[in-house]
Amino acid sequence: LYIAGILVVPVLAAQAQQPRPATDRPPANVRTVLVIHGGAGVLTPDELKAAGLKAEDFEQALARALWAGYQQLQRGKSSVDAVEAAIRNMEDCELFNAGRGAVFNGDGQVELDASIMDGNMQGQGEGKRDPRRRAGAVAGVRHIKNPISAARAVMEMESSRHVLLIGEGAERYALSEPVASKYGIERVSNLYFWTDRRVKQIREAHRREEARRAKSTAASGAEADEVADNTAPALHDPDARFGTVGAVAVDANKHIAAGTSTGGMTNKMAGRVGDSPIIGAGTYADDRACGVSCTGTGEIFIRHAVAYDIVAHMLYAGKTVHDAVRETTLALPDEEEGIGSLIALDAQGRHAFGITPKTPGMFRGYITSDGQMYVGMYTGEEKRVQLQP
Amino acid sequence: LYIAGILVVPVLAAQAQQPRPATDRPPANVRTVLVIHGGAGVLTPDELKAAGLKAEDFEQALARALWAGYQQLQRGKSSVDAVEAAIRNMEDCELFNAGRGAVFNGDGQVELDASIMDGNMQGQGEGKRDPRRRAGAVAGVRHIKNPISAARAVMEMESSRHVLLIGEGAERYALSEPVASKYGIERVSNLYFWTDRRVKQIREAHRREEARRAKSTAASGAEADEVADNTAPALHDPDARFGTVGAVAVDANKHIAAGTSTGGMTNKMAGRVGDSPIIGAGTYADDRACGVSCTGTGEIFIRHAVAYDIVAHMLYAGKTVHDAVRETTLALPDEEEGIGSLIALDAQGRHAFGITPKTPGMFRGYITSDGQMYVGMYTGEEKRVQLQP
Repeated sequence: LYIAGILVVPVLAAQAQQPRPATDRPPANVRTVLVIHGGAGVLTPDELKAAGLKAEDFEQALARALWAGYQQLQRGKSSVDAVEAAIRNMEDCELFNAGRGAVFNGDGQVELDASIMDGNMQGQGEGKRDPRRRAGAVAGVRHIKNPISAARAVMEMESSRHVLLIGEGAERYALSEPVASKYGIERVSNLYFWTDRRVKQIREAHRREEARRAKSTAASGAEADEVADNTAPALHDPDARFGTVGAVAVDANKHIAAGTSTGGMTNKMAGRVGDSPIIGAGTYADDRACGVSCTGTGEIFIRHAVAYDIVAHMLYAGKTVHDAVRETTLALPDEEEGIGSLIALDAQGRHAFGITPKTPGMFRGYITSDGQMYVGMYTGEEKRVQLQP
Repeated sequence: LYIAGILVVPVLAAQAQQPRPATDRPPANVRTVLVIHGGAGVLTPDELKAAGLKAEDFEQALARALWAGYQQLQRGKSSVDAVEAAIRNMEDCELFNAGRGAVFNGDGQVELDASIMDGNMQGQGEGKRDPRRRAGAVAGVRHIKNPISAARAVMEMESSRHVLLIGEGAERYALSEPVASKYGIERVSNLYFWTDRRVKQIREAHRREEARRAKSTAASGAEADEVADNTAPALHDPDARFGTVGAVAVDANKHIAAGTSTGGMTNKMAGRVGDSPIIGAGTYADDRACGVSCTGTGEIFIRHAVAYDIVAHMLYAGKTVHDAVRETTLALPDEEEGIGSLIALDAQGRHAFGITPKTPGMFRGYITSDGQMYVGMYTGEEKRVQLQP
């Protein structure tokens, strides 16, 4: 089942050119209305077992998030509502590196980032506020239960057009009234985010570092690079590196929205911000092209402006969403530890997954306009699921 | 002299199609090696006078920054060195909204953001770190004298590939040893940044707000929007909105670098981050296309991924730097208060300025390979300057 190391090009489920065995898939004329990911931190079956996790748990968690977003669309709500609902659902689930279940930074704190964007080019606000391409994001928050809703509150802030708020300033705004009540934003202790799995993970990472530093100091007597050592991420465990959740939806009015939420990289330097709250890097939406949400080594996604790069391929080179995702994904560097992956969805309901060659896979799923759900973990494999009671 | 309100298309100085009176310009075969801006917060001659400022002061400040960057290139240093030197020079100058002279946020603190990017696609590091498109940024720092050097330190961090560090985490890294010594990063009190002009500006903004709130409370009895009111920026004074400094350079090896540094928007909400530290929005560099630095209403530059959009126009639609800047600039919304402006420079030494129609101008300048300097404030007007002793 585990097929890391094989060159994989992005898969466009609704437009696949040849049938692939062992993969359910909807009829070609059915539109995808919501696509989600739960990070590229996919574990091999053995690793899953060692961590006391089951593939089915992830599949059901993805199905629950898909269903939460789908219900919004069924009620006639917007793609922004669907994206927010799907991501809140995953933020509340311990399995993903976002909200509850997020990883720790190198200082023993959980710091969360999130962003959301509305691809509507017309907008609802008055002209002088440029309502086109609304976006909101928060970074480095430690006491907000659902960062995606804080990002949405920033996006819809009426008195100003701030897009990105960080740290205490972001918390102060999101938790002020009437903002907190309107968007369902709850203040929690940082301890709310602590799960057994992540506490174990960070303490092991710290112990490894201590051992390495002791060894290196003994060997060379050098202490000059202590700061640098301190900040080295724990790179070996994909689960510790590649979590993040995201969603892209298209609603009945053909408006696209995209969002991303994360706890970042395990053992990251305090204050480190990855691509998730960066509009253009981790998240982008433009009705004329597509919506995108990314997960992986965030810095590479920032430096390559990945989310916007896909949109630009469509707008300026006339590519389809499938080809745009392929072009962008193949232009990313190819590293032993893998780089990450992304989801995209256009206004016609065509979705695409992009997974860099050495990335083991991506927790992902999509739901069609008629409510059929498909989920997958490893590259190139998706299957139909039903919500268990 | 003041020609706001006229539709202005981006001007490519070295390739202008028709001679324009009253504008010095270098011969067509001379390359630009460094282009800088000091923000779009240009004041009319009357406003300058009222603020006790002289156009000549800005012209000389721009010339000093150009000369500082040029000296690096003359010594065979890289475009990254030239960009850093030019921006440090402007950060140390009281006239610009970056470093000393930066504006206050709505909490009476100066919070600084900066970013830098190396357009070198080959890189010097080992393969697995993906040295291509190196970039670094800091946001929300309050005690670092030269944020651009902190951004460079993040870019060149060896032990990890973080791109963006925020707040206290960013300060802790940049001020640690050996980082601080290596990059010349000094810790200063927030008071270092306070200048008479900015203290006056923020206190007036605050008084106006208090008066407005008192009036609105008296009229409606409503206090629900207090938070919103609190955070409204002072939008009337371009000087209070559009400062920021930036630079783009190309070196003897045809490598491009770009950087941007700012204090943000006067009276901004604490924690607000604009486009300046966002790779893809305020800053981008790619040797195959161009380098870009932006200034203006940062949120619009984030939502439109402006810096990367110019690069994408060149890479995917085959535009020249001139046409790419024009396309991107004209796609921005057109607001009464103006949106902002940007500078770009390609590997062949062709530069372009983009100024949105209702923006009064941009403090800007460029220096050619033979050391001739040209500066301008209002749209479409540049003149040759010499450094005064």
